[in-house]
Amino acid sequence: MSMIESPLFWPITLKNSTIYVLDETRLPEEMVYIKCKTIKEVVRVIKEMKTRAFGQVLIVFYAFLMVLEKNKNSSPEKLFIILRETAKNLENARPTFPFKDFTRPVMGWAQEAINMKLDIKSMKSMLEKRINGYVSTIKNARYARATKAAALVKNNDCILTHCNVSGELPLMAQICKKQGKNIKFIATETRPYFQGSRLTAWELNYTGFDVTVIADNTVAKVMQEGRVDKVIVGADCLAKNGDFANKIGTFNIAILANKFKIPFYVLVPPASNYKTGKDIPIEIRPDKELLEYKGIRFAPKNVKGYYPAFDVTPNELVTKHIALF
Amino acid sequence: MSMIESPLFWPITLKNSTIYVLDETRLPEEMVYIKCKTIKEVVRVIKEMKTRAFGQVLIVFYAFLMVLEKNKNSSPEKLFIILRETAKNLENARPTFPFKDFTRPVMGWAQEAINMKLDIKSMKSMLEKRINGYVSTIKNARYARATKAAALVKNNDCILTHCNVSGELPLMAQICKKQGKNIKFIATETRPYFQGSRLTAWELNYTGFDVTVIADNTVAKVMQEGRVDKVIVGADCLAKNGDFANKIGTFNIAILANKFKIPFYVLVPPASNYKTGKDIPIEIRPDKELLEYKGIRFAPKNVKGYYPAFDVTPNELVTKHIALF
Repeated sequence: MSMIESPLFWPITLKNSTIYVLDETRLPEEMVYIKCKTIKEVVRVIKEMKTRAFGQVLIVFYAFLMVLEKNKNSSPEKLFIILRETAKNLENARPTFPFKDFTRPVMGWAQEAINMKLDIKSMKSMLEKRINGYVSTIKNARYARATKAAALVKNNDCILTHCNVSGELPLMAQICKKQGKNIKFIATETRPYFQGSRLTAWELNYTGFDVTVIADNTVAKVMQEGRVDKVIVGADCLAKNGDFANKIGTFNIAILANKFKIPFYVLVPPASNYKTGKDIPIEIRPDKELLEYKGIRFAPKNVKGYYPAFDVTPNELVTKHIALF
Repeated sequence: MSMIESPLFWPITLKNSTIYVLDETRLPEEMVYIKCKTIKEVVRVIKEMKTRAFGQVLIVFYAFLMVLEKNKNSSPEKLFIILRETAKNLENARPTFPFKDFTRPVMGWAQEAINMKLDIKSMKSMLEKRINGYVSTIKNARYARATKAAALVKNNDCILTHCNVSGELPLMAQICKKQGKNIKFIATETRPYFQGSRLTAWELNYTGFDVTVIADNTVAKVMQEGRVDKVIVGADCLAKNGDFANKIGTFNIAILANKFKIPFYVLVPPASNYKTGKDIPIEIRPDKELLEYKGIRFAPKNVKGYYPAFDVTPNELVTKHIALF
């Protein structure tokens, strides 16, 4: 397919042992890539939410590739220790996103290389091959998931979405278009970080689709007015029972969709080790991020805020999980 | 009672034929009053939402008092025509707020004065007396309504509110305090205008109460966490069947309160002439007010937004209407 890809679909690249991370905080004004040359820098861009969602998956793998390149003259044992240290730092970057699900396979392969007593060159080569293979599998799986989502959508549907699914909705819309289905979108602005207006509306507009931004509090109103045919959101973490964590506000929308009998679909990663949504730790971020934006303060200086970055939507509110694999 | 009154409880005054309007758009940074010397200026501060909610009631009466003062040397017939013109301009300032409910009694009194063939001095004096009497009745009624609301609240309750009820919640909290009940508040920030963080959090903090700001999309989460005992909101317009229009997002919260079985109370004005909520016209404001704030643009320039300023909550989601009279 010859299509314009959303820059958010693949927000990270690796070149000459440097990771280039699309700075999502500066969109839509400018497309700037942050250079990371150390794991410390990688952890910082995650903590500061310069990248998020799928970017957090990619950056894990590229972080390992960078480490492999930078330590190619090390011993296998030393490399293993450095990889383990890298994994630990990434896993602790933010609580809700299950980094371990992505560090675990890499550490498994590293252990395998050690057990096989590979020399450093072979160990590096094996790990690179496995990591690149995994990343490419994920890429194909994302195309396949967008295709599955497209199959659920009818001509003239209006899809309401929340936060940002890293380029997968524009891809889905393009697949629909090829199938002769025109669809349009309503994007919640997604406070406090405005991923909806800054990222989703931007990438849908960039790829040529009709998108209307609403405030998060306008969802019931647009549903009542019959403007929404389907809801499609992403998920940061899926529990084994089908509950999932996603950007704060997703749970609100799921309840409203249920009330208005609107199908609620979620694009999910493979299930994490958490049994139910109750087990997923929820990151509470500094209230400054809610009460201030680019130097403008919304509330008086001494007023406090509460900003859980995620909420959990229970399985029973999900019409269908759309799986990656 | 010796209490600090929220400046939002009585945001408008009249002195020397000039109306002073508390500029709510500049809160919480600064407390500035805009001077209005003409009806054109009055209509502009309403359209630009410099004042809102109860301010829109007060400004109607003060506008008439200003007109009476400025035309005290006119003839009764000419004064009547000017009053009628004033009423028409005010009624058309914004669609959802029922200005007619407040212009109508004044025009009734003016007609009465004409029928009684009063001279200009007596006509002015009679109208001033009636208007001031009406305004003072409203003031007493607002105290009474806050007292009724306080009676519904228990010690240690946490009240979730949306938008801003013009000083009535701090008043209610003060009444509770006198009754030995400590209560605290969660205020939704209320996009796009931030009345929750800029006005409600400000006035509650100013009057000494505990308030926490959340994003509008965090309501389901805080309800799920058991943090909310009651919801109390205001109403811009009440239909005869109990449906009411209030700031966009109120309907969302009502559905969520219902889902979590949390009492949902609304402080209502007297019923308008609209039979049901479906009859209340809903103002659609420029999407620029949603997509930009103080010069910061959240979405790309060519992306559109949808900003209905109000939504309608159906009567069946209301646990109890708390009436003004």
